[in-house]
Amino acid sequence: MKKATWKKTSFAEKIVEIIRTSPSINEMREQLQDYHDNDIAQSLQFLNRAERNLLYSALDAEWLAEIISYLDDPAEYIDEIGIDKLAEILNEMDADDAVDLWENIDESVKVKLRPMIDDETKSAILLINSYDDSEVGSLITTNYICIKQNLTIRQAMHELVKQAGENDNIGTIYVVDDKNRFCGAIDLKDLIVARENVPLDSIISYAYPYLLDHEKISESIEKIKDYAEDSLPVLNKDRRIIGIITAQDVVEAVDDELGEDYAKLAGLSAEEDLNETTRESMKKRLPWLIILLFLGMGVSTVVGAFEGVVAVLPVVICFQSLILDMAGNVGTQSLAVTIRVLMDEKLSAKDKLHLTFKEMKVGICNGALLGIMALVFLGAYIALFKGYAIGHAFLISGCVGISLLVAIVISSLVGTLVPILFHKIKVDPAVASGPLITTINDLVAVVTYYGLAWLLLVQLLHIV
Amino acid sequence: MKKATWKKTSFAEKIVEIIRTSPSINEMREQLQDYHDNDIAQSLQFLNRAERNLLYSALDAEWLAEIISYLDDPAEYIDEIGIDKLAEILNEMDADDAVDLWENIDESVKVKLRPMIDDETKSAILLINSYDDSEVGSLITTNYICIKQNLTIRQAMHELVKQAGENDNIGTIYVVDDKNRFCGAIDLKDLIVARENVPLDSIISYAYPYLLDHEKISESIEKIKDYAEDSLPVLNKDRRIIGIITAQDVVEAVDDELGEDYAKLAGLSAEEDLNETTRESMKKRLPWLIILLFLGMGVSTVVGAFEGVVAVLPVVICFQSLILDMAGNVGTQSLAVTIRVLMDEKLSAKDKLHLTFKEMKVGICNGALLGIMALVFLGAYIALFKGYAIGHAFLISGCVGISLLVAIVISSLVGTLVPILFHKIKVDPAVASGPLITTINDLVAVVTYYGLAWLLLVQLLHIV
Repeated sequence: MKKATWKKTSFAEKIVEIIRTSPSINEMREQLQDYHDNDIAQSLQFLNRAERNLLYSALDAEWLAEIISYLDDPAEYIDEIGIDKLAEILNEMDADDAVDLWENIDESVKVKLRPMIDDETKSAILLINSYDDSEVGSLITTNYICIKQNLTIRQAMHELVKQAGENDNIGTIYVVDDKNRFCGAIDLKDLIVARENVPLDSIISYAYPYLLDHEKISESIEKIKDYAEDSLPVLNKDRRIIGIITAQDVVEAVDDELGEDYAKLAGLSAEEDLNETTRESMKKRLPWLIILLFLGMGVSTVVGAFEGVVAVLPVVICFQSLILDMAGNVGTQSLAVTIRVLMDEKLSAKDKLHLTFKEMKVGICNGALLGIMALVFLGAYIALFKGYAIGHAFLISGCVGISLLVAIVISSLVGTLVPILFHKIKVDPAVASGPLITTINDLVAVVTYYGLAWLLLVQLLHIV
Repeated sequence: MKKATWKKTSFAEKIVEIIRTSPSINEMREQLQDYHDNDIAQSLQFLNRAERNLLYSALDAEWLAEIISYLDDPAEYIDEIGIDKLAEILNEMDADDAVDLWENIDESVKVKLRPMIDDETKSAILLINSYDDSEVGSLITTNYICIKQNLTIRQAMHELVKQAGENDNIGTIYVVDDKNRFCGAIDLKDLIVARENVPLDSIISYAYPYLLDHEKISESIEKIKDYAEDSLPVLNKDRRIIGIITAQDVVEAVDDELGEDYAKLAGLSAEEDLNETTRESMKKRLPWLIILLFLGMGVSTVVGAFEGVVAVLPVVICFQSLILDMAGNVGTQSLAVTIRVLMDEKLSAKDKLHLTFKEMKVGICNGALLGIMALVFLGAYIALFKGYAIGHAFLISGCVGISLLVAIVISSLVGTLVPILFHKIKVDPAVASGPLITTINDLVAVVTYYGLAWLLLVQLLHIV
């Protein structure tokens, strides 16, 4: 009996060692069986071309298919694999992985591969590609167990064993009626512990949750998460199962969905990674920046109207960036909270009103607190370092404090209402809200601050 | 044989109907068996107190335990369940769900419950609570199948059927040696299709991936995702299995992790939701705002140094907000990209250098483009609407353009280097970078812009 080795070295390192030192291919294959396919996939980068070729010839297509499906960037290696083996690998792969791999293959190789791909794989690839990337259908795998409704427990078990050779998502067994329409599901555990004399019917859940192929991923992701199942069936309009979505797909989808939102909040049009070219990165970042540049020119016009105030009381410009930064941040906070709340599709009009009121309340409380802090600390600062009389210093800092309060309250409201509005008119609030909110907040803050300074300090009190 | 009903009504609505109209408890129980526990959980909110009581008495503790573990807010309902049944439910629950539920129970009820909880549940709750929320150990469930290494295929199958009654995470069967130490795992599919005469050894993966109980969730989440397994074992320092992490836990953890990052990017100290009190929301938002207020005062001092420029050339203040907003946005873009890249723990010094160069390159390209746009459009605007001579107008807009370029390049660098630095000194870059980056960018932008305006427009060219 073998013993696990518990050294500090990583699994990938051990795999490299095995491939380099095994006396025979059989020995190597046997030892590799103990390792996770993901670890074998990770070890490829540490091998040289000859060692990888050894691996490709030692393992069968089914095993290689599993390993390749774990690679982040299979394009690096598929050129190294002979065309016959590559075709075999594609035929063995789960449909969704085959689609991913297929996209990584050069057109010249595809031409040669096409006649070698079996019909089942071909139609699965066609099916998945027929869905838009935003639709549930694009996430499916055809690796699942499906049995007829009218079997006995023993027949079902037999069918499971037969299909499990090909399909390894066996946690839930899907059941179809005599017209091949989805009618329910069996938890594998229930089948395993069931006694042979009970009817299969008694362990079938006839109202099992399902997804529709054209549903939007973003709209069904909360539902999928809520059911917390290893897999959920995906049906077409005829109630036929076209495939399943596994928990792993959900992890990826959640990751993508949140990653996209995260990127959008930061003013990127899509998520970026380390390996992108400068050109791609520019394309993702420029749209928002250009919009902002032009909106900013609009703000400049408004600020221009207050040149007179600044000319007579230059000290006021010191605090413009403070007020704008604070307003901008408060707006982003409200925006982020609102977008996350909006992701929950079940929001009623009452909930939205509640959210708006809450944001306003938080804005008033935070604004009042920050306004008072600005009044006290800035007043002291202006009196001490700018050489203004104490009374005048606190009048100026009072202007800043009141402007902060007003700007923060309005920013909270804008940061809440603009995304709600965009959501209502079916525009992605995460993408559209950013520049608009920044601009509105800037405008409000500038007008409030300079307006107040002009009214209070220049017109009424003649501080200058 | 039953037929699935395919009306448009939701499963939860149908469940409510069943509970309201069933002629007997047995009939109701039988019908409910077809539904997913999550749907039964969601139906509770549509039932009145009496109907819920009927449900509590109709279903056994094991079933109720499953249903309750799907509730977002179980506190609402647990008061309605009698204390005896509640104890039974806790004893039947998965350990991690029991921990969640236990936190929702009033202390007065806990006192009565404690003697009724069985030792196994008690020790599981104690174990999970012994880990910090950031550690992998806090996510485990003790619902898994574990067998000895030296069984035959038949014995293993028998053991599986025996344990599956209690534990329903059966996709992977964990194997321990004679000292009860984790030594490998069996894919249930391999066990099901294995012929009886092969040794169990041949289907055990002896180098199966595992997690350690004290690992940080944030640091292992990429690894967990990469293995794409239904579950992974969690070991303590003695190599004993203390529990497993399921794919569902991973979905939740990914969701939480990204949600936190998202919140931090928006300047919130933690994720918020609709049901929070104003006080809680304030506590999450104020820290960053207060830091920013004081840092902003620092920026004000610097702007103050340029009062002279503004006094003689008030038109320059028009474009301050434009430059600061652009710099702020570029900084946030770089920050967001860098934080996501840093999440990938395997980053070498070379990768970091590569990232910094890439950000700088993107900054220079975007900055040049936006700078030229500003030069052209603002120059035209100043000449047309502000009444400056064309030459002077383009000198002013040239100042804005150059400042934009400089501010954007430096913001890109700051947005990349600050989080890398924080990451290096083990401070969460997502939380710490925000205010510092805003402030540095404001300072750089203000000094560049006003400095350039003073140098070029006031000192050299005497535009005024």
